[in-house]
Amino acid sequence: MYPLPEGYFAPRDRWYIAAWSSEIGREPIERWILDEPVALYRKENGEAVALDGRCPHRSFPLGKSRLVGDNIQCGYHGLTFRPDGSCTQIPSQPNIPNVCRVRSFPLVEQWKWLWIWMGDPDLADESMIPSLEELALEGSSYTIASGGYSLVNARAMLLHDNLFDLTHIGYLHAPSFGSGGGALDTVPRVTQGDDWIDTQYVQLGVPMPDFHARLTGYEGLVDRYQGLKLYLPGLHVGGSAFYRPTGIENQKGELIGSVQVYHGITPATRHSTNYFFATGQTMTKDPAVCQATLDYAMRSIIPEDAFATQEIEEMIERSGGRPSEILLKADRACVMGRRLFEKMIAAEHARAISKEGAISKAAE
Amino acid sequence: MYPLPEGYFAPRDRWYIAAWSSEIGREPIERWILDEPVALYRKENGEAVALDGRCPHRSFPLGKSRLVGDNIQCGYHGLTFRPDGSCTQIPSQPNIPNVCRVRSFPLVEQWKWLWIWMGDPDLADESMIPSLEELALEGSSYTIASGGYSLVNARAMLLHDNLFDLTHIGYLHAPSFGSGGGALDTVPRVTQGDDWIDTQYVQLGVPMPDFHARLTGYEGLVDRYQGLKLYLPGLHVGGSAFYRPTGIENQKGELIGSVQVYHGITPATRHSTNYFFATGQTMTKDPAVCQATLDYAMRSIIPEDAFATQEIEEMIERSGGRPSEILLKADRACVMGRRLFEKMIAAEHARAISKEGAISKAAE
Amino acid sequence: MYPLPEGYFAPRDRWYIAAWSSEIGREPIERWILDEPVALYRKENGEAVALDGRCPHRSFPLGKSRLVGDNIQCGYHGLTFRPDGSCTQIPSQPNIPNVCRVRSFPLVEQWKWLWIWMGDPDLADESMIPSLEELALEGSSYTIASGGYSLVNARAMLLHDNLFDLTHIGYLHAPSFGSGGGALDTVPRVTQGDDWIDTQYVQLGVPMPDFHARLTGYEGLVDRYQGLKLYLPGLHVGGSAFYRPTGIENQKGELIGSVQVYHGITPATRHSTNYFFATGQTMTKDPAVCQATLDYAMRSIIPEDAFATQEIEEMIERSGGRPSEILLKADRACVMGRRLFEKMIAAEHARAISKEGAISKAAE
Repeated sequence: MYPLPEGYFAPRDRWYIAAWSSEIGREPIERWILDEPVALYRKENGEAVALDGRCPHRSFPLGKSRLVGDNIQCGYHGLTFRPDGSCTQIPSQPNIPNVCRVRSFPLVEQWKWLWIWMGDPDLADESMIPSLEELALEGSSYTIASGGYSLVNARAMLLHDNLFDLTHIGYLHAPSFGSGGGALDTVPRVTQGDDWIDTQYVQLGVPMPDFHARLTGYEGLVDRYQGLKLYLPGLHVGGSAFYRPTGIENQKGELIGSVQVYHGITPATRHSTNYFFATGQTMTKDPAVCQATLDYAMRSIIPEDAFATQEIEEMIERSGGRPSEILLKADRACVMGRRLFEKMIAAEHARAISKEGAISKAAE
Repeated sequence: MYPLPEGYFAPRDRWYIAAWSSEIGREPIERWILDEPVALYRKENGEAVALDGRCPHRSFPLGKSRLVGDNIQCGYHGLTFRPDGSCTQIPSQPNIPNVCRVRSFPLVEQWKWLWIWMGDPDLADESMIPSLEELALEGSSYTIASGGYSLVNARAMLLHDNLFDLTHIGYLHAPSFGSGGGALDTVPRVTQGDDWIDTQYVQLGVPMPDFHARLTGYEGLVDRYQGLKLYLPGLHVGGSAFYRPTGIENQKGELIGSVQVYHGITPATRHSTNYFFATGQTMTKDPAVCQATLDYAMRSIIPEDAFATQEIEEMIERSGGRPSEILLKADRACVMGRRLFEKMIAAEHARAISKEGAISKAAE
Repeated sequence: MYPLPEGYFAPRDRWYIAAWSSEIGREPIERWILDEPVALYRKENGEAVALDGRCPHRSFPLGKSRLVGDNIQCGYHGLTFRPDGSCTQIPSQPNIPNVCRVRSFPLVEQWKWLWIWMGDPDLADESMIPSLEELALEGSSYTIASGGYSLVNARAMLLHDNLFDLTHIGYLHAPSFGSGGGALDTVPRVTQGDDWIDTQYVQLGVPMPDFHARLTGYEGLVDRYQGLKLYLPGLHVGGSAFYRPTGIENQKGELIGSVQVYHGITPATRHSTNYFFATGQTMTKDPAVCQATLDYAMRSIIPEDAFATQEIEEMIERSGGRPSEILLKADRACVMGRRLFEKMIAAEHARAISKEGAISKAAE
């Protein structure tokens, strides 16, 4: 589906952020991920569990059911499933058919996220999750406020498009932090690997944006370095750093202040997206100030991104699913990103076909 | 459509509950039945009328129109139809074309229900309506409160599934009457005829459920007999009876108390259902107590059934219309019920084809 | 689509009312016209502009963007377009690709309307807009209140059907102005041209309707002349005039009072319609009285028409898109109107095919 080719939705054999650690407890929740319902909860020892959110008996939502010890009990007829997905009880009969089980998804808790693997469990490899050092979550000087969540009624690729091209800041975010010198009107430098894309914007000797002037208490010219790195398929990490201007690229002056952002993008359904957001800064270690910045973002900035992508989702649906578009220089990351996603999905399709072939062969 | 085969929706040549008698008066109402709009009202002498709810001129809803004497006058251009469906007036012209008429549906008022026949009127046979004695509505010791109505956004077969398998009581109804010993964790005995299915649950020497203890004032062990009989296509009637325990099946002790329930299930559209509910009991003849029990059911119990079936309807639609499912021992009535529905519908299809054949033959 | 043949929606090579002049200013608005989004705004000199409402870059709605001088700046990445649709700025890059432009629609401001041409711009001919004298907007004795607007969730042809057959007044409008002698229970005389249909209703020696008696202060018998002329594809203009009765057609007595109405019908999407309404009268020149009459119509009369057409739209959609219907004598204008619309659309289809042929030929 747009902007990917027909039949392409999202990679499956990858880790996605399923939830903030703080969202999941002893009351199960339902969350849609890759167009499937998932039931998320914690065992008594605190370990998090992700099960297929649909009871195999009558399709009642397990995410709207209740826990009995470490197990989840379907809210309709009481079928009870262990964290591994096996059935431990059917109240109306003593024997439990083998087919009566749900899928249990690999789930890893790292930093404050729960990472889920919706694809082939044999391929689930924890080392594919970006490391904390890499993400500046450990060993860095950022004080971070986390836990921002929003369900956006737009396909995930529109949110990637949004983050691939930060030249939107001066326009879409004019009502919040993009005004007063905030515009990033410059073509970014883009680099990529097999499963990441890094986009860096450099502005030398520009006025400090009003928003950041208020945060840092510094007004005047700066060298501004800003960018985002997407760890496919769903985590954009990056920041803005402001230096006393040298006017020469790569020759940085004194750091005035730096902001870090984390955008988790996990497809909910084909037309909606789970959006996770956190932000950090070097200017203060006061958690209340950091929390206030996060609250401001969730109240004022992220809703602007949600507005744009939801409007575009509606335009796409009203115009038959595949709108014409013009690609600009600043869309380079966006084009490269689409190709990376496409390649990942194509590789999965090829793997599925060859696996089927192998199974047929084995059966001969 | 699920859980019936594709192309199967609901039998038509059968009586369905269209409304409670008390719902219909001198102000017409619109009610969708078997995916068709029906206009319901009463003549000046009190007789109830059911007409096609769509004006044949411009498709304006007759159920949102007004009465002129015994006739209904379309709210758009004033075309007026008699209770037999013939047109008595077209305000803008003197002559009335023969084709200008609406269908009038056979309608029978029995006890407090209006029964409608949406199929071939030549086949409408009042004796197919369950008798009052059969339904324990006359000659029984139940004091009944009636008139419960709810439009549920789920296909009718999901509500039949719900009533075919009462092992849901201890789980879905845990917040209302299913807790404190209320669970019916036992495989029922199922018997059937051409157009009925009877499901009986027997629990010997079990604790009196809290809910029924409050109703009867009796605590302690009981022999519990509970069940529902579906008179196809749409009325489930049954009850719970509690006896001083003998612990031996079919050897009943002293009756402590008994509750009777009536669930009318009439498809509205393919994805929504008219749900009619009444309840009776032997413990008191006080109508206020009976009404309070009905009110409690409509406020707390029926919404639980609506919640489950609506959630499942949504799961079905999101998963492409035909979810996988696992059938348990307690699903025997459900499986037999689907077969009976399927057989009834198949017989109607066969009848329709042979009728067309006869018409073609006559025309040769 | 119903009531036109499949594949027929609405003529494009015609002028439609896009907005009231008073609706458009220095804040752009989005309006859907013929299933396309249009951005409407005024330049600094007051001239009105209509641009394709979708940014060609990422499909963000230009009608929800902002103005920079005479140009519109996309609210997402700041691409800026001139009133002629050419792009004047892409903030992130200096050069502007030729393909980066939006369509600018011919727009004519006449009386208090903005008329838009959504079809082939080479064919846009201002003389096809009805003249003000013709519409009794200049050189007439009517005092007019304008500016009524409503978005109706029904296809435009249902609103034409409604206005083609005023015998609905005594029934649909019984709660507002159709009661107390207001019914127009008579077959109209219909005449037509290539792009207009005129429908006239004559009632001789009938009681003055209550509503008009209140407006004119005259009670008693009248000769009543009423009618509407549709200037295809979207403006119905007409009036009611009441004379001291002679009882002889075409021999008019003394004019008691006259009311003029203007109904602009512009398809928004395939299932919704922009409805513009104005009304005038000869009984008073007091603008407050005229405004009060318009307000009453927008509060009480037009909602009745919207109710009927929305109910019918829903009936059509629920019944598979093509309901059966019966055509009465009073439907003559409606039948002729459908044929005129069909003919116009067929001619456009033929023109499009011959144009493609000519282009292929030229390319050989």
